[in-house]
Amino acid sequence: MKDATGVVPGLAVILVGDRKDSATYVRNKKKACEAVGITSFEICLPEDSTEEDVLKYIADYNENPKVHGILIQLPLPRHMNEAKILDAVSIDKDVDGFHPLNTGLLAKRDREPFFVPCTPKGCIELLHRYGISIKGKRAVVIGRSDIVGSPVSQLLQKEDATVTIVHSRTENPEEIVRQADIIVSATGRANMVRGSWIKPGAVIIDVGINPIDVSRICPIFLLFYMDCAAEKDSSNL
Amino acid sequence: MKDATGVVPGLAVILVGDRKDSATYVRNKKKACEAVGITSFEICLPEDSTEEDVLKYIADYNENPKVHGILIQLPLPRHMNEAKILDAVSIDKDVDGFHPLNTGLLAKRDREPFFVPCTPKGCIELLHRYGISIKGKRAVVIGRSDIVGSPVSQLLQKEDATVTIVHSRTENPEEIVRQADIIVSATGRANMVRGSWIKPGAVIIDVGINPIDVSRICPIFLLFYMDCAAEKDSSNL
Repeated sequence: MKDATGVVPGLAVILVGDRKDSATYVRNKKKACEAVGITSFEICLPEDSTEEDVLKYIADYNENPKVHGILIQLPLPRHMNEAKILDAVSIDKDVDGFHPLNTGLLAKRDREPFFVPCTPKGCIELLHRYGISIKGKRAVVIGRSDIVGSPVSQLLQKEDATVTIVHSRTENPEEIVRQADIIVSATGRANMVRGSWIKPGAVIIDVGINPIDVSRICPIFLLFYMDCAAEKDSSNL
Repeated sequence: MKDATGVVPGLAVILVGDRKDSATYVRNKKKACEAVGITSFEICLPEDSTEEDVLKYIADYNENPKVHGILIQLPLPRHMNEAKILDAVSIDKDVDGFHPLNTGLLAKRDREPFFVPCTPKGCIELLHRYGISIKGKRAVVIGRSDIVGSPVSQLLQKEDATVTIVHSRTENPEEIVRQADIIVSATGRANMVRGSWIKPGAVIIDVGINPIDVSRICPIFLLFYMDCAAEKDSSNL
């Protein structure tokens, strides 16, 4: 990229507090940046920082022409207003795609966000790489979070899947999951989806992550391609 | 409102071109404003106006403290970039709720848009007024437009329904519609949903509108409360 454009991309991370899992994430982001030639900027603030402290650093990074992307490591300490802080990130540096304007552009037909949230984008990439047909398929997303469930359902719909979002208030989720050709499980509740819930031939992506297990440094994608009906053409999935 | 706050609310409408249905809409909005004491502002531009003409009027209304809401009558002439024009409306005057920032705030959990699109809001209001339970119910929205299908599905989900969006690429829509406790049909295709698609006891809201019939001045809501099983408690719907 530097050779092609003369610009070295810069990614800034703001970490507040001393959660070990967050520190691991940030460390690994930094390593990944080094591996691909992105300049890392990093601010680690103490747990008892004020919202104003964080907003000040965001404003600095918004102005800094060497910074092209800003990540606010979540979760923030409880005394901070997450919405206010995420909204302060400049829309064209919102590489997590969590700013409501990016969310709105993703939700609208015929519009494109500046950035798509990475985990949902990864789910679609997995389906594409494995040659899984999405158009017209029944997709069930389990979980309705802003970070995974909601944006992945929008991406699946943009690919012409017929999408149902199952959540904590859904009655008989197993009945709905059983109809799915594609299942994206993004609940954080381990072992929620049972084998008996899954239609033979269905494709499952498990975005579940256990925040206690710090050895897991990024969302774990598991792609089961349950080809129980081996003679079935994959285009019929 | 004037007595309570000393402020007379003002609503501006920008109409481009001479579509009869649009003119009827605008005329009726004006009448409705008069009836409730809202000051109407109205600009009717010729079909061959430029984007810049429209953007100029939007900028004026954005600045005008007597104007509290701005409606851009859709559809705009084909030579105009609808997204660019809708995006120019100040977020706090976007009474249609079509600005992508309002769309994003609606799509996010625990956030609230400045304005909710009126037809989807009307659907939820209908359900509430008729005492229809939404939480945990299976809802099927037919149509995925930015104006009705998509926002109504988000509103239903905010009320804890389990929502599926059926659209033109959905295979066997009748199978999905048959599972619904609540159906919102927002397709514009007359007679698409057949009686045989509907589960006894399901609630249907038809937001269908036929743009040829100019006597229909606003989306027609039809609420069938198909109480085929008369002994069934409505809470079981």
